[in-house]
Amino acid sequence: MTFSYQQLFSFAEQVFLAIGCPPADATLATETLLSADLRGIDSHGVARLSGYVRLWEAGRINATPRVGVTYETPSTAVVDGDGGLGLVVGPKAMRIAMAKAELVGTGWVSVKNSNHFGIAGYHAMLALAQDMIGVAMTNASPLVAPTYSLERLLGTNPIAVAVPAGEQPDFVLDMATTTAANGKLEIAQRKNLPIPTGWAQDAAGHPSTDANAVKNGGALQPLGGETGSHKGYGLGAVVDIFSAVLSGANYGPWVPPFVAFLQPSANPVGQGLGHFFGAMRVDAFRPADEFKSHMDNWITTFRNAQAVAGKHVLIPGDPERDMAAHRLLEGLPLLDAVVQDLEGVGKKFGVKL
Amino acid sequence: MTFSYQQLFSFAEQVFLAIGCPPADATLATETLLSADLRGIDSHGVARLSGYVRLWEAGRINATPRVGVTYETPSTAVVDGDGGLGLVVGPKAMRIAMAKAELVGTGWVSVKNSNHFGIAGYHAMLALAQDMIGVAMTNASPLVAPTYSLERLLGTNPIAVAVPAGEQPDFVLDMATTTAANGKLEIAQRKNLPIPTGWAQDAAGHPSTDANAVKNGGALQPLGGETGSHKGYGLGAVVDIFSAVLSGANYGPWVPPFVAFLQPSANPVGQGLGHFFGAMRVDAFRPADEFKSHMDNWITTFRNAQAVAGKHVLIPGDPERDMAAHRLLEGLPLLDAVVQDLEGVGKKFGVKL
Repeated sequence: MTFSYQQLFSFAEQVFLAIGCPPADATLATETLLSADLRGIDSHGVARLSGYVRLWEAGRINATPRVGVTYETPSTAVVDGDGGLGLVVGPKAMRIAMAKAELVGTGWVSVKNSNHFGIAGYHAMLALAQDMIGVAMTNASPLVAPTYSLERLLGTNPIAVAVPAGEQPDFVLDMATTTAANGKLEIAQRKNLPIPTGWAQDAAGHPSTDANAVKNGGALQPLGGETGSHKGYGLGAVVDIFSAVLSGANYGPWVPPFVAFLQPSANPVGQGLGHFFGAMRVDAFRPADEFKSHMDNWITTFRNAQAVAGKHVLIPGDPERDMAAHRLLEGLPLLDAVVQDLEGVGKKFGVKL
Repeated sequence: MTFSYQQLFSFAEQVFLAIGCPPADATLATETLLSADLRGIDSHGVARLSGYVRLWEAGRINATPRVGVTYETPSTAVVDGDGGLGLVVGPKAMRIAMAKAELVGTGWVSVKNSNHFGIAGYHAMLALAQDMIGVAMTNASPLVAPTYSLERLLGTNPIAVAVPAGEQPDFVLDMATTTAANGKLEIAQRKNLPIPTGWAQDAAGHPSTDANAVKNGGALQPLGGETGSHKGYGLGAVVDIFSAVLSGANYGPWVPPFVAFLQPSANPVGQGLGHFFGAMRVDAFRPADEFKSHMDNWITTFRNAQAVAGKHVLIPGDPERDMAAHRLLEGLPLLDAVVQDLEGVGKKFGVKL
């Protein structure tokens, strides 16, 4: 089934209002959440709305957080998300990074006591309108085994970097530090298909092509495959450290699970989960017009490179931007299971999809 | 053949002096260069000394550069390397980033008009002694094809991140954004061995197990393998943009080649090659002791995780630190071809190995 962006926006916004979010926060949370659906990252969008609601029901999300700076220097801050939705805490923290960049060139904000923030790319892209480079990272529920580990110690820990261009569309990298996101395994599970090697390992640590491997005691594998997974592990580790060890959030296996039926650790090493945001004013290095015209040259050089037959070289962000343009016009397709799930949420609060 | 660190240090330092480096720069260049040999990254160490000398002979390295800031804000700077050795420009630029971090919490320096800087990890690790997180990146000669490209548009563009710990040894990630460094292909060439798929593609863009694939018109492949190389490509692109589009250095296919027999582009888009350095004071986020004790907990948790039979979970930096301790005691092994090459360099300048 296909829904218009406006229709889903109105629905999700009403649900956030119903759980007690102030109106401005409900709007912000909805915009953040739906940016995933628009950009084709369906695993992180409205399909997760019921998950956020269940966390709220379990008392693990504060609908009226007082998001504030607990420590700062001219170019840094630690933000306490007060247990709020990451969808709200994230953009607020990113704007603090941008305000610091306005004053001293760059701003870097580590966040504790937050929850899942949707897609990293949304937050990084907030910087673009002000001719800044945006950086966003978050740690996440432990599903990933470091190289050689049988234990899940890291989340899919994404990194997003958004870079403004001139005439060309902006450069937007948004990537998990695993080979595949867990959402891709879920899709294979539903379709009863095997998964490529390199995505997951079984409970004994062997490479697995079973889409249920993670469910059955296995783990997602870090980006890099057989000879390079130590690099994906290293990147995921940096995301964890910047997001949580710097801020005072939980890290590694202590990161609270997204699913409400799993309890957070009884002995946390910090508060909630953590994010890390950065903003760098382009003109803190060279005139913005000069930078952007070189970015245009960079982008066209790569896009026009000779490619293997039937393919062309993509710029990070190309597929997601095309998808967003298409879905704004044609609507957003949702799986039946997601529609039923949303209707269940709507019934709870008397909100119609 | 095995040489003591002191022996190689004295030799390399005399060669740098012989090409006209001021004494302090000759010492610094040697320390930077040999950090690669100590840490077991033999492809980036003294084996490259003759390459640097040939670039100097070709007039492409300035032995007496005036390294200076051309633009700055409180947390950023652009540094002009004045065509100097990256081995000298790098540490000087990193110390500028650290001085800014001392004042405003973080410092971020993009460098133009430089040359290859050895291993990224050396520069990032300079921050550790001052309880700072260090970040170092560089672009490099184009050897890597982005996903679907037949053209080489990126270098192996490494990322290093060094994080101070307390009782535990520090966390030091230092990784190329390709599956394998070119040095690994060179080793397979010498031994006449095939390479694993995922390392390189042939001239038609097909995955290749031929160690000569890159030599014969192919390219190195980005980190990530068959289903994930767009991520390695994206990371390598970010390194290129931060190092060169921000600073005004050459980027993409315009990065000057390391080998002197290949000419730099006649139509450069910037000056020399570029680096990017960052320093973040840990106590710009939370008290340093608190941060470091949580890093210790992070490190021991990961190191002690249950592992597949016969293996254990490593912390980034573990193998290189062990190697350095071993080689300081036992000496540094050099291949015969490297020894002959160094003797040739020595003869030129009347320096004995």
